[in-house]
Amino acid sequence: MTIGVGVVGAGIMGAGHAKTLHRSVSGAEVTVLADIDLNRARVVVAELPGARATDDAFALIADDAVDAVLIASHDSTHAELIMAAIRTGKPVLCEKPLAPTLAECAEVVRAERSAVGDGVPLVSLGFMRRFDPGYVQLKDALSRGTQGAPLLMHCISRGVSSAPSATNESSVTGSAIHEFDVVPWLLGQRITEVSWHAPRAAGGVEFQDPQLILLRTADGVLSTVDVFLNARYGYDVRCEIVSEKGTIALTEPTRMVVDSGLRRSVGYAADWRPRFADAYRIELQAWVDAVTKGTPTPLATAYDGLLANAVADAVITSMHEGGRVVAVAVPALD
Amino acid sequence: MTIGVGVVGAGIMGAGHAKTLHRSVSGAEVTVLADIDLNRARVVVAELPGARATDDAFALIADDAVDAVLIASHDSTHAELIMAAIRTGKPVLCEKPLAPTLAECAEVVRAERSAVGDGVPLVSLGFMRRFDPGYVQLKDALSRGTQGAPLLMHCISRGVSSAPSATNESSVTGSAIHEFDVVPWLLGQRITEVSWHAPRAAGGVEFQDPQLILLRTADGVLSTVDVFLNARYGYDVRCEIVSEKGTIALTEPTRMVVDSGLRRSVGYAADWRPRFADAYRIELQAWVDAVTKGTPTPLATAYDGLLANAVADAVITSMHEGGRVVAVAVPALD
Amino acid sequence: MTIGVGVVGAGIMGAGHAKTLHRSVSGAEVTVLADIDLNRARVVVAELPGARATDDAFALIADDAVDAVLIASHDSTHAELIMAAIRTGKPVLCEKPLAPTLAECAEVVRAERSAVGDGVPLVSLGFMRRFDPGYVQLKDALSRGTQGAPLLMHCISRGVSSAPSATNESSVTGSAIHEFDVVPWLLGQRITEVSWHAPRAAGGVEFQDPQLILLRTADGVLSTVDVFLNARYGYDVRCEIVSEKGTIALTEPTRMVVDSGLRRSVGYAADWRPRFADAYRIELQAWVDAVTKGTPTPLATAYDGLLANAVADAVITSMHEGGRVVAVAVPALD
Amino acid sequence: MTIGVGVVGAGIMGAGHAKTLHRSVSGAEVTVLADIDLNRARVVVAELPGARATDDAFALIADDAVDAVLIASHDSTHAELIMAAIRTGKPVLCEKPLAPTLAECAEVVRAERSAVGDGVPLVSLGFMRRFDPGYVQLKDALSRGTQGAPLLMHCISRGVSSAPSATNESSVTGSAIHEFDVVPWLLGQRITEVSWHAPRAAGGVEFQDPQLILLRTADGVLSTVDVFLNARYGYDVRCEIVSEKGTIALTEPTRMVVDSGLRRSVGYAADWRPRFADAYRIELQAWVDAVTKGTPTPLATAYDGLLANAVADAVITSMHEGGRVVAVAVPALD
Repeated sequence: MTIGVGVVGAGIMGAGHAKTLHRSVSGAEVTVLADIDLNRARVVVAELPGARATDDAFALIADDAVDAVLIASHDSTHAELIMAAIRTGKPVLCEKPLAPTLAECAEVVRAERSAVGDGVPLVSLGFMRRFDPGYVQLKDALSRGTQGAPLLMHCISRGVSSAPSATNESSVTGSAIHEFDVVPWLLGQRITEVSWHAPRAAGGVEFQDPQLILLRTADGVLSTVDVFLNARYGYDVRCEIVSEKGTIALTEPTRMVVDSGLRRSVGYAADWRPRFADAYRIELQAWVDAVTKGTPTPLATAYDGLLANAVADAVITSMHEGGRVVAVAVPALD
Repeated sequence: MTIGVGVVGAGIMGAGHAKTLHRSVSGAEVTVLADIDLNRARVVVAELPGARATDDAFALIADDAVDAVLIASHDSTHAELIMAAIRTGKPVLCEKPLAPTLAECAEVVRAERSAVGDGVPLVSLGFMRRFDPGYVQLKDALSRGTQGAPLLMHCISRGVSSAPSATNESSVTGSAIHEFDVVPWLLGQRITEVSWHAPRAAGGVEFQDPQLILLRTADGVLSTVDVFLNARYGYDVRCEIVSEKGTIALTEPTRMVVDSGLRRSVGYAADWRPRFADAYRIELQAWVDAVTKGTPTPLATAYDGLLANAVADAVITSMHEGGRVVAVAVPALD
Repeated sequence: MTIGVGVVGAGIMGAGHAKTLHRSVSGAEVTVLADIDLNRARVVVAELPGARATDDAFALIADDAVDAVLIASHDSTHAELIMAAIRTGKPVLCEKPLAPTLAECAEVVRAERSAVGDGVPLVSLGFMRRFDPGYVQLKDALSRGTQGAPLLMHCISRGVSSAPSATNESSVTGSAIHEFDVVPWLLGQRITEVSWHAPRAAGGVEFQDPQLILLRTADGVLSTVDVFLNARYGYDVRCEIVSEKGTIALTEPTRMVVDSGLRRSVGYAADWRPRFADAYRIELQAWVDAVTKGTPTPLATAYDGLLANAVADAVITSMHEGGRVVAVAVPALD
Repeated sequence: MTIGVGVVGAGIMGAGHAKTLHRSVSGAEVTVLADIDLNRARVVVAELPGARATDDAFALIADDAVDAVLIASHDSTHAELIMAAIRTGKPVLCEKPLAPTLAECAEVVRAERSAVGDGVPLVSLGFMRRFDPGYVQLKDALSRGTQGAPLLMHCISRGVSSAPSATNESSVTGSAIHEFDVVPWLLGQRITEVSWHAPRAAGGVEFQDPQLILLRTADGVLSTVDVFLNARYGYDVRCEIVSEKGTIALTEPTRMVVDSGLRRSVGYAADWRPRFADAYRIELQAWVDAVTKGTPTPLATAYDGLLANAVADAVITSMHEGGRVVAVAVPALD
């Protein structure tokens, strides 16, 4: 059995997911692809045998050829499109964030709960680090517990250069938000309080970059998050978990070492795509499998997305209020 | 368009390939799976929707549901099964080796040439290292040529423990043979002469283990090959290419580092499967794509397999004749 | 010309310094060694040809055979002994800290200034990291400035187990204080404000361990300091400096890698002595050279020691006041 | 007690040793320094308080201020100078090689035996790798024997560029000879047979570079030696010992890692001096200590030097005779 997937968005993420679904995932085929720029949709569809292009995302969601929806359009469209998918009763995987605001996130979660009750939820959220083989190894090691209780984490998330539109706030909601999901996922604990700190700012960058964020989870574990969008030297994601008897940490995945010019070196990726290509592939397969079997999503849920946004809100409050410690406020849903 | 693949062999390799085809490769589905032990075939087929089990590999090859054949049965059956596939005109991917003897290899190559003439060859050979992302990076770097001409290579191929049936000769034909393919593939040069050397033998092992082999390619590059099937400590494949201005080498792929008990450590795989899982997946996709498009195989060809066997023969001659330098003799095909 | 050095303290540090002076430093010999436990002094002196033991540190300082004094006795004695050395006009190298309290530090600095005026200072302080080849490489790289301005630093200082007397405060004044010296030394900037944060505490430890400290220098660079005295897994000092175009970081110095039991591993030191043996040797040689030539000390000065204590005081204030940001107050000296 | 050392040779090695003796070794002072170029000797002596310059090495050896002799002059002078030192009954440390020819080596060994009989030998040979902390860790690990018997070794010795006078033979006698000493020292076994192999030669180099040498010790362990004097990329010495249950290997000693320009890198030394600075210092201290105490040298002996030359002779024979396996012939001494 093969499910038909409708992909919304023909940008880097949407085109990438469509290609991955077509090439590397079993049990699914892309049947419709939507973009507000129909030509852009057509270019992507040209590589996808049997798929149609449209500029109408809502028509895509309603299309009989679409059994499940993958949303990779602009953040501002996420909530509305997820709601539409929920109304049709179709499973939907949305790229992070769930919605730009916490209020919209809550609305989405309520809508899903109202639609499915105690049934299998419809919404999955694309926090792909949960499927990165490195993070999975960290989580497995934590669950074995041989190093005692975790106490302290150090997270680093650096890129080569930011998008032109980047701001202090988008650095939090667009990049650091991955840590707001992966830290509680690893520890099995919610983030309860945060604070935001400004290192010296890099010259020639329009916003505060890098940023340093402290996160505390319910069990008291403290995490440092170093987010630096214009780090120049490479795309570099690190994570070290310090526990009572030892530490575990990600290694930079490398395949080749070069000796040349008095240096021994390995390469960095220039952006997140090669670093997380495996994670996206595995994530999409896991989603397609769950949709096919009708089992609960192994991906982040809508509620996980709401929690990440709640943390982002608290961090931005701290940013705006002198770096004070801010408690994470999770909206009541009823 | 989806091609139907018939898989011969339900052992570790056959079951693994069938699962990879089903789960991670697009454009193909396993339609029939054969094993001389029908029950073993049935167990594997139970996980493959739409596939049938049989104990008759020749029936599988002839089956209308089979567009292409994947052979992962015992080495002794390879030549015969490939010949059968060639007779049906179906593309066939065979696990290495092409055949146990050089004479049979030559027979297979002749049969294929006779069948297809100047057309697209039918036979692909499963030297998966050609698709390992690390080896691919080495080859890409060599082709850029920024380090000048390659001069010397060091290859290491170590495993945790050998099969009970391992012998001096099978160590060459079963393990070192990967180097006999990958060294010329990397350098773009045939291996012309070899010599075999016996280090001190590991205690408690019935055959000469480790072995050291020297290979010389037509351009004069000398390669050392350290093959140690019972190295105990881990599955470990290394390759360093020393060129005029620098070196390139594989790194051990790791995802997690552990600090514990006064040691900082990363893990080794216990066997080749996790180390080359990506390679197998990428290889199978490349094969399916070429079969679908009717283009020449990007995998090793039957002739590449014959060349690797010719090197193995020369190495075994050196082994039996005091480690002398032996020229590689490639059978004439006409 | 050889200078006679009087060493005060026959504990681990004093005995170690005496041996290093005797064995690995040119231009100096240990002539007198003092300890309140005369027998302990005698044991150390037995390995030092020509040296005498005493239980009277003040007599040692006054001794004609003593041209320069090295203080490695209990922290509580530092100020008093330095003052005595200043009174004799003899150069003195004191292990950190300069004194247990900031007031005493100020008193020592005033006494030295009053004694030497514009002349060559007498007091050197044993912040040995300034002579560690790794930190020296970091500082050299920073001074070349090829990576642009430093923005953010991550410092880690972990040990296997703490002394029985360790407390929240001694963790700061005894261990983190190394960072309070080395961060401004690396950056060429004073630390101006700090905050203290408590991660989840390790079980079975009587005090808050680990601790996380944030330091800000005058140029705005923010540093995280992770101090964990009972990290169990090894003695581990790390430092990463994130600059505008790249990062530099210490590597763990290792000499041997072991492949065994499905792991590839390198060793950690069990305590600080092997890690900083080179640093101590180089530091002592630099001190002896400066004393011999009558040139200003290349080690940390008394004022550097005062500054480090001022930072420690601010950190402890933050610790006692809910982790708030505390400005570093440096006592006026006139 | 301080011994007076006379240093013969004011080149890189002699000047380096003189400085190390003066600065970093206890119990010795350089009293006389000889060079055939008296001005060169004077330049070095200017940095050595109390030392005199001479152009007469034999006068130096006879000088009453010289208790022990360190020879770092041209290889061709070694045997003659050692013989002179033996005649005076003074301990002598000679840089490798003991002598240019095996016959001269034998003469030196006979002269020493004749002079000292059953007494403490006079001659030490400067195979400094025996004091490199990395090699010492390898030897310690081997002596613990936890990995079972050694079976196979891989040695790599690469430099940036060779001296203008380098030849096929000098590559063996000047560089590979370090392996001919360190391999038997590590394994506790003599090298009994060798063979020499020519990889493709680097362009623009006047002699065969790199070279590959196989060594077999009496216990059957086989060692590969990759010597490449013009490797360009850095000074790089590696050693891996493959044993029955695992491997141990040197790591490249590094202190700092740099992230920059999509690369993570560490540095190589440009020549052997920084790589082996610690080894030289520790070696000289060990020599001075043994001389002072009148105990047998912990360095390589004259006989060790003779053995290394015997291996070099065998390797050169193999080089000249088509790479055949050549047995190492050790001259009879009586």
